[in-house]
Amino acid sequence: MSSVAFDLNHWSAQQLARVEQALSDWVAPGGVVDDEHPAPAALREAMRYAVLDGGKRLRPLLVLAAREAVVDREPPDVAAGLDDAALRAACAAELIHAYSLVHDDMPCMDNDVLRRGKPTVHVQFGEAQALLAGDALQALAFELLTPEFDALDAAAIPPAVQATLCRQLAQAAGYQGMAGGQAIDLASIGLALTEDQLRCMHRLKTGALLQGSVMLGAACSRRCVSAAAKTALQTYGAALGLAFQVVDDILDVTADSATLGKTAGKDAAQDKPTYVSLLGLDRSQAYAQELLAQALAALDASTLPNTQALRALADMVVNRCS
Amino acid sequence: MSSVAFDLNHWSAQQLARVEQALSDWVAPGGVVDDEHPAPAALREAMRYAVLDGGKRLRPLLVLAAREAVVDREPPDVAAGLDDAALRAACAAELIHAYSLVHDDMPCMDNDVLRRGKPTVHVQFGEAQALLAGDALQALAFELLTPEFDALDAAAIPPAVQATLCRQLAQAAGYQGMAGGQAIDLASIGLALTEDQLRCMHRLKTGALLQGSVMLGAACSRRCVSAAAKTALQTYGAALGLAFQVVDDILDVTADSATLGKTAGKDAAQDKPTYVSLLGLDRSQAYAQELLAQALAALDASTLPNTQALRALADMVVNRCS
Repeated sequence: MSSVAFDLNHWSAQQLARVEQALSDWVAPGGVVDDEHPAPAALREAMRYAVLDGGKRLRPLLVLAAREAVVDREPPDVAAGLDDAALRAACAAELIHAYSLVHDDMPCMDNDVLRRGKPTVHVQFGEAQALLAGDALQALAFELLTPEFDALDAAAIPPAVQATLCRQLAQAAGYQGMAGGQAIDLASIGLALTEDQLRCMHRLKTGALLQGSVMLGAACSRRCVSAAAKTALQTYGAALGLAFQVVDDILDVTADSATLGKTAGKDAAQDKPTYVSLLGLDRSQAYAQELLAQALAALDASTLPNTQALRALADMVVNRCS
Repeated sequence: MSSVAFDLNHWSAQQLARVEQALSDWVAPGGVVDDEHPAPAALREAMRYAVLDGGKRLRPLLVLAAREAVVDREPPDVAAGLDDAALRAACAAELIHAYSLVHDDMPCMDNDVLRRGKPTVHVQFGEAQALLAGDALQALAFELLTPEFDALDAAAIPPAVQATLCRQLAQAAGYQGMAGGQAIDLASIGLALTEDQLRCMHRLKTGALLQGSVMLGAACSRRCVSAAAKTALQTYGAALGLAFQVVDDILDVTADSATLGKTAGKDAAQDKPTYVSLLGLDRSQAYAQELLAQALAALDASTLPNTQALRALADMVVNRCS
């Protein structure tokens, strides 16, 4: 294990500085309403409120860590283009996550009033504005992935990379991914799910976008990564995605709202099936550690050279306190 | 005017047969829930309900008409790939339109119960399912635009075309397009707008996706269309988009709910600013004809050879009865 020498806090701080700056630059900027910025201030404000100043940014970090894992011997200008692609993909994944939270918090879904320690978007801006802000954030994710490019510019993001990123993000977000998982969640309230059914729900609801974030980063590469490396990253992403949810279920029971920045204990209150309700606390904790081991083993078995950030992120996901 | 000999009904019937089949094939198919189709049946059903069996399919027709206008001397396999791109773009534009109707009809927005002669999606499936179905339809639009491709297959959609289609659709749908227009609409209820403000709202709310549909079709081309042709198509799309809304406002006053397939008279009932409330009926009708003339003049001035379908569609939009 080479991860001992890797300083996740230092690496994350560097990456997050880039991500936060990019999000602030790209999410509905401009206070003035004019021909260049025709969208009303209230909509932009709701979009920025939903995205900026909060969140662990796990999905962006996974994108950027996966990009590091597949960095090839690239000429500097090509590397610059692919780094730009990864930063855009990191922000796009976060926009999809942010929009899903906005819609998920609405009264017709989870009806939650607290998120990241602040009033939820519909509480702050009204339901209609929250609905539109979520919709606009999803569209913006795909806009970020497809900047106009000059075919003669070596540092431009290759169109094949742009198209692949859009395909992967759309699949992760759509009815066979995150939105499908939310629909299963909706249909499961009050039902006694088996562990298989619970796993299926989470594989889509949170797993698809977490695994998808890893694969977005892996797509920011000059050549396609090998089939073996791709499988390793998929296995890593699937295990990490499921581990994230198991730990989420554990924290819903063991942490308080102030630590979480959202309402604690709401799963039990809403009679939602969770790993804790199904397996109990001890077995859930053991399962999370088992999934961490699976994620790390997949990277061990791969030939990917530069996986420290991915390894450290998996460890952080499983051993986090909020 | 060469449009006299063009049979729009015949052309539309041919195009719509392809569009309806493609939508039925691509929108959340499969009744069985398994590893290949993990999304719950209720979500897919809501998605298909929102899209299939209804609608004039104006946006798909505009995409396909614009593709015809830019057809170049293409080898048969290249033409097949670009025709596939246009069909996908036609369906993607319709999915964005359909999702916007689902969300727009929800209680927190327009709170409408009738659409295309049927109960709206949230009435039929519940608000939460309607919210998710709309979200999933938006993601699916971008998934349709980015099929996996084999770089060695000449009939594959070139990745640069895929990326351009995603960029254009995202911009048309997002906060500087449709979603922004809906936010302006929301903020305008009960206000006395000037004609400039009303035009700005509609330019985004319906105009962006109608004009965007024209530009999607124009992007399905082997070479970039000339700057002059692009400007002509943008002018055509802008005039047609605005004309569509002016006529919509007229029909809201002059037609009944059965003819429209949606609730008539709701603009006045909700005290929404419209062209009729601002200009009166006669001047609104004259304005619609003026916009039609603008759209046709832009095509006349262009060097595009094959614009009959675009011309006939503009005529149909302005002189329609429902």
